[in-house]
Amino acid sequence: MLNFSFHNPTSIHFGTGQIAKLNKEIPKDANVLIIYGGGSIKKNGIFDQVVEALGTRQWYEFSGIEPNPSYDTVIKSLPVIADNNVDYLLAVGGGSVVDGAKFIAAAAEFDGAEPWDIIAKRARIASALPIGVVLTLPATGSESNSNGVVTRHGNKLPFGNKLLRPQFAVLDPQVTLSLSDRQIGNGIVDAFVHVMEQYLTYNVNGKVQDRFSEGLLLTLIEEGPKALDNATKDDLEVRANAMWSATLALNGLIGAGVPQDWTAHMIGHELTGLYNIDHARTLSITLPAVMKVRREAKQDKLLQYAERVWHVVDGTEDQRIDTAIELTERFFKQMNLPTRLSDIDLDASHIDTIVEKLQQHGLVALGEQREVTPEISRVILETAL
Amino acid sequence: MLNFSFHNPTSIHFGTGQIAKLNKEIPKDANVLIIYGGGSIKKNGIFDQVVEALGTRQWYEFSGIEPNPSYDTVIKSLPVIADNNVDYLLAVGGGSVVDGAKFIAAAAEFDGAEPWDIIAKRARIASALPIGVVLTLPATGSESNSNGVVTRHGNKLPFGNKLLRPQFAVLDPQVTLSLSDRQIGNGIVDAFVHVMEQYLTYNVNGKVQDRFSEGLLLTLIEEGPKALDNATKDDLEVRANAMWSATLALNGLIGAGVPQDWTAHMIGHELTGLYNIDHARTLSITLPAVMKVRREAKQDKLLQYAERVWHVVDGTEDQRIDTAIELTERFFKQMNLPTRLSDIDLDASHIDTIVEKLQQHGLVALGEQREVTPEISRVILETAL
Repeated sequence: MLNFSFHNPTSIHFGTGQIAKLNKEIPKDANVLIIYGGGSIKKNGIFDQVVEALGTRQWYEFSGIEPNPSYDTVIKSLPVIADNNVDYLLAVGGGSVVDGAKFIAAAAEFDGAEPWDIIAKRARIASALPIGVVLTLPATGSESNSNGVVTRHGNKLPFGNKLLRPQFAVLDPQVTLSLSDRQIGNGIVDAFVHVMEQYLTYNVNGKVQDRFSEGLLLTLIEEGPKALDNATKDDLEVRANAMWSATLALNGLIGAGVPQDWTAHMIGHELTGLYNIDHARTLSITLPAVMKVRREAKQDKLLQYAERVWHVVDGTEDQRIDTAIELTERFFKQMNLPTRLSDIDLDASHIDTIVEKLQQHGLVALGEQREVTPEISRVILETAL
Repeated sequence: MLNFSFHNPTSIHFGTGQIAKLNKEIPKDANVLIIYGGGSIKKNGIFDQVVEALGTRQWYEFSGIEPNPSYDTVIKSLPVIADNNVDYLLAVGGGSVVDGAKFIAAAAEFDGAEPWDIIAKRARIASALPIGVVLTLPATGSESNSNGVVTRHGNKLPFGNKLLRPQFAVLDPQVTLSLSDRQIGNGIVDAFVHVMEQYLTYNVNGKVQDRFSEGLLLTLIEEGPKALDNATKDDLEVRANAMWSATLALNGLIGAGVPQDWTAHMIGHELTGLYNIDHARTLSITLPAVMKVRREAKQDKLLQYAERVWHVVDGTEDQRIDTAIELTERFFKQMNLPTRLSDIDLDASHIDTIVEKLQQHGLVALGEQREVTPEISRVILETAL
């Protein structure tokens, strides 16, 4: 196991009816900005529950945060915050809304001229508005971690600071019942790949981390298809297990003390930035290709993954690894996600552009050993054709 | 899954050399009381590392916290705190030292006449001194939870408050190398039973909680014997996996959203309070008896435990449960712990006294369904003879 520090102070309130808890979490005298996306929360009753829980607090709204939130959208909130002395952000939505709120939290207190410098120049985040979350789409884990991603001019780029970690997150599985099949499938696969990027590296004998990761993968494999099946999709237990898995997949715990990869994510971010592909639908394409191209470096863990997650124990080592990768792809297809660039109408002619973007963003030494050069990224993309 | 709220803000610093981190965690102007036990930390170099990390901070010492810390001992620290304006407690030791520090943290700020009221009358803990921990014995999980146990006049009684949760805990596996075999065995079994009390209840389909629990049990079963074997006991990876397992066994995570039992603990506390038996050595006796007496109520989970933890899949359901209980007892014996009251020289003549103590402490409806009456506790004790 590697040395680590772990600190996750986000309060989790999990279960049906827990939206009411935000009344305990947000200061009574707060001026709250409710941040949300396209407005579905106004149709499905979530907005009303939030407003009821806020009681007599003064609140304002900022809507329109899109999937893969854009810089140009999120900074439009800054005048609303300034004009109304907003001092608490309440993100009501999925990972994109939470990520947007995180950027807003930092930008509202940023003392430079151009908040984009937080990303472009890694300008210091010295303070930030406090954030609470009512999660509506389990997927990214953003509700209890300190990172976010924002897109500008075709560049989808990460930022992070411990000040941006939400103070609390309400996880009510009931609110996920109105999600579309596409949102459900994306969320399950996003969480799955988050686990894989922290698990499928080289072995450091982190037994607890490995088993926790395997437990999350097994749960997502079991519950994912049920959440798409008409006979079981309204089962709150299925939704609850998926929701809790997605949060734990990226709250820092399973990645503490073990190497991490994130190659599939970094290449995936370029696909989203350039071609506006859903985040999860980039990962379902890039992860299998990363597994294939880096199978030697990841051999021990691939064999462990084959055995413990897919119960593949017969055959040579190569055959077992092949089977595990194939089963992974089959799972993504079962969740109705693409596994090839051709599935999203990209071909070999796009690879140069993608690799150039990686280089432009300084992503020239990816992977758990920093050995994934642009040339290896190119091979990964060719493998994903 | 049951509704839950989960909040664990303790910072964990894990790994060799991490004691130095307390310099970042404790305020520079703090007046620190170093709280420890019998003084082994002065022989094995841990005290010196702590003092070096404290740098120029003013510090004082309070030693002599015994296993199962006694009220009479811990309150002797109060004049030291008052006379020196101590405003930060640093517990350096195992669970008893941490529990003692927690009681001291509450007692030092208690505004009633008699700090024992915190336990006896459940008097309100309105404030407490901040606590940091350098853990030397992985076992109780006290380093990142908000509970403690203190003993007075043969009564070992719990207390808890979120204000008592340590702000940080340093977990350096290296410092566990000087533990005795008895301390190692006790610690492994203590952590194992903590997991079992949150896992072996009735099934609420908490898939993640179950799998995390099973992951911890499997790791303790693998690493425990290695930590006692001369060929492997100095392997820091073994110690690291055991240490991280013990913390996660009782930091609140695996118990969030699932029923909990704690019958084995409550009966065990009476054995410690009355006869001064090591905490873990009471659990290794009470848990198997609880499993036997409550096998019907716990049947689903016993079968899952048999299959996933001990890989027992052959035979009738009754046979599989029998085998799982037998393997549990065999594991405790392998760790050199007793599994019968007769092993610690107690017999049927002691049972009345133990059951009376349970009643005296109001422990008359134990278990995940609150159905363990004093009469059932008696049967559990008879089964443990």
